[in-house]
Amino acid sequence: MTDAEGRSRSRPGVRHRKGRLEGFSDGVFAIAITLLVLDLVVPDQAVGAQDLWRLVIDEWPGYLGYLVSFATIGALWIGHSSITDYLDRTDVWFPRLNLLLLFFVCLLPFATRLLSEYIAQPGAEKVASTVYGLTLVAASGLLSMLWRYARRAGLLIEDVPAEEVSLLTARLSPSLIVYCVLIALGFLLPQAAVVGYFLVALFLLTPRSRGSVIFRTKRPGRRSTT
Amino acid sequence: MTDAEGRSRSRPGVRHRKGRLEGFSDGVFAIAITLLVLDLVVPDQAVGAQDLWRLVIDEWPGYLGYLVSFATIGALWIGHSSITDYLDRTDVWFPRLNLLLLFFVCLLPFATRLLSEYIAQPGAEKVASTVYGLTLVAASGLLSMLWRYARRAGLLIEDVPAEEVSLLTARLSPSLIVYCVLIALGFLLPQAAVVGYFLVALFLLTPRSRGSVIFRTKRPGRRSTT
Amino acid sequence: MTDAEGRSRSRPGVRHRKGRLEGFSDGVFAIAITLLVLDLVVPDQAVGAQDLWRLVIDEWPGYLGYLVSFATIGALWIGHSSITDYLDRTDVWFPRLNLLLLFFVCLLPFATRLLSEYIAQPGAEKVASTVYGLTLVAASGLLSMLWRYARRAGLLIEDVPAEEVSLLTARLSPSLIVYCVLIALGFLLPQAAVVGYFLVALFLLTPRSRGSVIFRTKRPGRRSTT
Amino acid sequence: MTDAEGRSRSRPGVRHRKGRLEGFSDGVFAIAITLLVLDLVVPDQAVGAQDLWRLVIDEWPGYLGYLVSFATIGALWIGHSSITDYLDRTDVWFPRLNLLLLFFVCLLPFATRLLSEYIAQPGAEKVASTVYGLTLVAASGLLSMLWRYARRAGLLIEDVPAEEVSLLTARLSPSLIVYCVLIALGFLLPQAAVVGYFLVALFLLTPRSRGSVIFRTKRPGRRSTT
Repeated sequence: MTDAEGRSRSRPGVRHRKGRLEGFSDGVFAIAITLLVLDLVVPDQAVGAQDLWRLVIDEWPGYLGYLVSFATIGALWIGHSSITDYLDRTDVWFPRLNLLLLFFVCLLPFATRLLSEYIAQPGAEKVASTVYGLTLVAASGLLSMLWRYARRAGLLIEDVPAEEVSLLTARLSPSLIVYCVLIALGFLLPQAAVVGYFLVALFLLTPRSRGSVIFRTKRPGRRSTT
Repeated sequence: MTDAEGRSRSRPGVRHRKGRLEGFSDGVFAIAITLLVLDLVVPDQAVGAQDLWRLVIDEWPGYLGYLVSFATIGALWIGHSSITDYLDRTDVWFPRLNLLLLFFVCLLPFATRLLSEYIAQPGAEKVASTVYGLTLVAASGLLSMLWRYARRAGLLIEDVPAEEVSLLTARLSPSLIVYCVLIALGFLLPQAAVVGYFLVALFLLTPRSRGSVIFRTKRPGRRSTT
Repeated sequence: MTDAEGRSRSRPGVRHRKGRLEGFSDGVFAIAITLLVLDLVVPDQAVGAQDLWRLVIDEWPGYLGYLVSFATIGALWIGHSSITDYLDRTDVWFPRLNLLLLFFVCLLPFATRLLSEYIAQPGAEKVASTVYGLTLVAASGLLSMLWRYARRAGLLIEDVPAEEVSLLTARLSPSLIVYCVLIALGFLLPQAAVVGYFLVALFLLTPRSRGSVIFRTKRPGRRSTT
Repeated sequence: MTDAEGRSRSRPGVRHRKGRLEGFSDGVFAIAITLLVLDLVVPDQAVGAQDLWRLVIDEWPGYLGYLVSFATIGALWIGHSSITDYLDRTDVWFPRLNLLLLFFVCLLPFATRLLSEYIAQPGAEKVASTVYGLTLVAASGLLSMLWRYARRAGLLIEDVPAEEVSLLTARLSPSLIVYCVLIALGFLLPQAAVVGYFLVALFLLTPRSRGSVIFRTKRPGRRSTT
């Protein structure tokens, strides 16, 4: 749960707090991502094999919602664990901002249920797609804000190269604009917007390069010290 | 999961127990806060965009309950992690008191459901608001008791300044009286009481000052040792 | 997550495994104990304050089941964390035995639902109470077996005094016989048996003495080394 | 959460990432295995003891599904914790592959519900058994892939003997072929296929030998260094 020996020497008692923040956040992310499955409806009263296949396939909005939300929560978690990787300690506001982020992560299963219920229904689909998009914007925006806050408040590990910090900033930010465009698109073509949300999640899940900031294998700034 | 090297040298085998207590508590808090979303009702049978907007908005008691309970469990978790931050070790009774606290944390999703179901219903709203308030009083009271017990039983880290200890005590206690007042208020104006519960949670979530005890950045009593 | 430095020096790579076993077990215990709340039924269609009070009180079998199961899972968790406290490492069979224990811990919410549904119904109450009792016997028996296995397979920390080991053995075992008696009693007086299950859980939760094995503050065998 | 001191000296900052990946995965496995219980149906409206026994026994497809899925998720978790035991660090792709594995682990409660609902129904049983089998193949295949990837990408601890690595490879792979055979069998005899899925899980849960790779007590390659 802890990664730095050097760190513990200069600031005793700080690592622990980061540990509980991570444990609680991991719990919330894990539960939110697993609760999604409760909304996959098992058809009842099917009368034969063909009938069941048809009914299972008819549930496509449920699978679509599951897929998009799973990818999104997964991407948010990977982003979140990147942030805490660079985090040296927390302060007064960081856990509160984190709680606000988790508020929207917890809302995602609800927004997903709304989406799955109405995405195949003309008219109502626009409402569902908008609520879903707003939840995504809020969660992504808060993740990005969490990182910016940690930078400005000086909570990061000291020997991280500036270039790495900029890369993670660049990675966490642009999805916000795309999400806003997709919410607007959702008023015209709600189903296209949902496909767009999935593509953003896939994009966030794809590593930029072998030398990417997120989940990089080695840290140049530290290799020299060892 | 552990934060002190000095600690481990003087009392081997103690840190581990604190670790499992924290892991289990984090799990319970994370699940209780995430289960709240299961009670946000997705309207079915809406026939169009306007219709769905209206139905979604009609669910306001559900959102209110979600918001208040999320803020409260969040505040309880922040308080709990402050306590274990100062904790050096557990003893015979600490985990049992902690279990009693978690009992009421686990009850909160039920009290929330009751609140959401009846807060918009004249008469029944008073019952719902009272049950909800009693659960909050019990949880806050036990959190405060957990901290007082840890102090008296000598379970805290040795080099914590007395002033920090008093500050956390002051922070954990006053909400009890306010909660009692709000329960009484709930017999007359149940909806106002719920707003009050939300304000208490927000108050608990707001750090007092930059030098606040909870999630303070540095500990003066320790900085000198490093 | 780890408590001994001396340990890590003699057996590298062992501590980690214990960590994941604990993390997974904590997760399962935390979820099982929190899922209980989902079966507390919120009455719908109450028409006033008095009506709602009556309906809430009518749900007493649900609260009884919640209380008994919460206390039991809590006691099982405390026993489980005592065992892993004395554990130095796992072997081939320990995690499998642990999985079998968790199987019955996971079944408890189901047995609780059955109990709450039928404990107030003549005839059916005997079935519910028997199924519930069998689940408790299986879980307690496996917890006791887990401890005995760890002792025989030599998985414990080396410097634990023999007297401590015997005390924990004595603590984990006797409930088995009581549970069997209560299951038999359940055929005649099912509701009395349920009260009995609650008393056993309370007994397990009560520390024997200040010098009790479980959650003792200091370990004499180690104090000398520091 | 970490097991190597030597490791931390050569690659600071790496251990932490493995910790969050493990914490998140433990959470998802624990929730998926515990959610299974929500699908065990408690019969309502039974009118007496005999009646309830009969209704409880009539739910056998639910218990069968619970048993098979519990054993399978348990086996997957044991395999997963074996992999991370040998893992020294993660890289860009490992957490993403892991997320894909968790996607299918999360789907298992849904596939189990489908199986339990339809396994006793001629015709539809074939669909249920096929969907269930495909989920198992995907999860096992990804677990095996995760291990192979970790080997090829050089993410393993350096001093693991080649023979241990081959043993774990051999352990994780063969179930894939058996699962494919069972899926084919499921078109003719769906219930036999389900029994087969259970036997595979039991086989995976049975340790090969005392000197087995998974959960071995000591590591020869390391014993010499201590």
